[in-house]
Amino acid sequence: MAHIDLPEGLPGITGPLTSYPETAKHLRGLAEALLRGPSSLTPAERELIATYVSAQNDCSFCMNSHASIARCLYGDDRDLVDQAITNFQQADLSDKMKALLVIAGKVQQGGRRVTREDVASARAAGADDKAIHDTVLTAAAFCMFNRYVDGLDTWTPDESAMYEQAGALMAEKGYLNVVRTDAANK
Amino acid sequence: MAHIDLPEGLPGITGPLTSYPETAKHLRGLAEALLRGPSSLTPAERELIATYVSAQNDCSFCMNSHASIARCLYGDDRDLVDQAITNFQQADLSDKMKALLVIAGKVQQGGRRVTREDVASARAAGADDKAIHDTVLTAAAFCMFNRYVDGLDTWTPDESAMYEQAGALMAEKGYLNVVRTDAANK
Repeated sequence: MAHIDLPEGLPGITGPLTSYPETAKHLRGLAEALLRGPSSLTPAERELIATYVSAQNDCSFCMNSHASIARCLYGDDRDLVDQAITNFQQADLSDKMKALLVIAGKVQQGGRRVTREDVASARAAGADDKAIHDTVLTAAAFCMFNRYVDGLDTWTPDESAMYEQAGALMAEKGYLNVVRTDAANK
Repeated sequence: MAHIDLPEGLPGITGPLTSYPETAKHLRGLAEALLRGPSSLTPAERELIATYVSAQNDCSFCMNSHASIARCLYGDDRDLVDQAITNFQQADLSDKMKALLVIAGKVQQGGRRVTREDVASARAAGADDKAIHDTVLTAAAFCMFNRYVDGLDTWTPDESAMYEQAGALMAEKGYLNVVRTDAANK
């Protein structure tokens, strides 16, 4: 049982998104703009940042959901996702992505943790302003999404098949319409 | 200097909102829905939650901005705002608001910290599902806004007069249009 009354059978964020449409509209729009909109980072890279931050926040629903999406988007390089969750510094990622994950991890702990040196390292590895902006806001936004999901104690399914199925759909369709449709099919 | 190139003279979140309009649209819409939309909590109570969470996150720009808005909205009871920042359990607030601030403080630390007992206490003091939902999402959203502002090292003005002037305007006008206009007048 979640902390508030939510429709049965809707996992994680899909319950409160369905019950509270006035805020859901903006939350979906933000996710779509951040993770699928124009950026110097690929959707796969942005989903990896979302996955990493969700793991650091110990939010199983968001971590498993975005890991599944990231695996679909990385395709043949899908093993990178689990490497990044376990230890991104040892993962087969670019120096740019490693430097951006350092920034994302600092943002997860608190915005003031990000240093000039962290940003200089990311720039030296090829990150532009848009990549740094999108990393900071994606990490910040998942500090919100993770707390929304867990602060209401929403239902976190265990079945990996559910995350794989939903992840494949969201990798293809994005965030604007699929959340409700996907949840309604559960 | 912020970590990325932002227009000069725009304080706090107004810089990135101006430079990154694709995400700003949704961030403004979320703030308006959460802090001004229909709720069983007054706009003053919701601004107090935003102020308290921003203080816990040590985000001076957001704390001072939302404290100024909350003071305007509380009117004759404006002293409550500083009491709440200092020690809300000793403040002259309702038992309902104290119970909701306990929940907001737990969300700020991490969503899993919120207990059934925290929620039961809020319900016993008169909080309904919408109040609990709005408290959790407002606290979560300010964990995002605070990290966006500080993770980019945006400009935090010191002058209290600036916060008072902007706060009065935003208490009256809300979040959809005023941010840009206000910033452009600095």
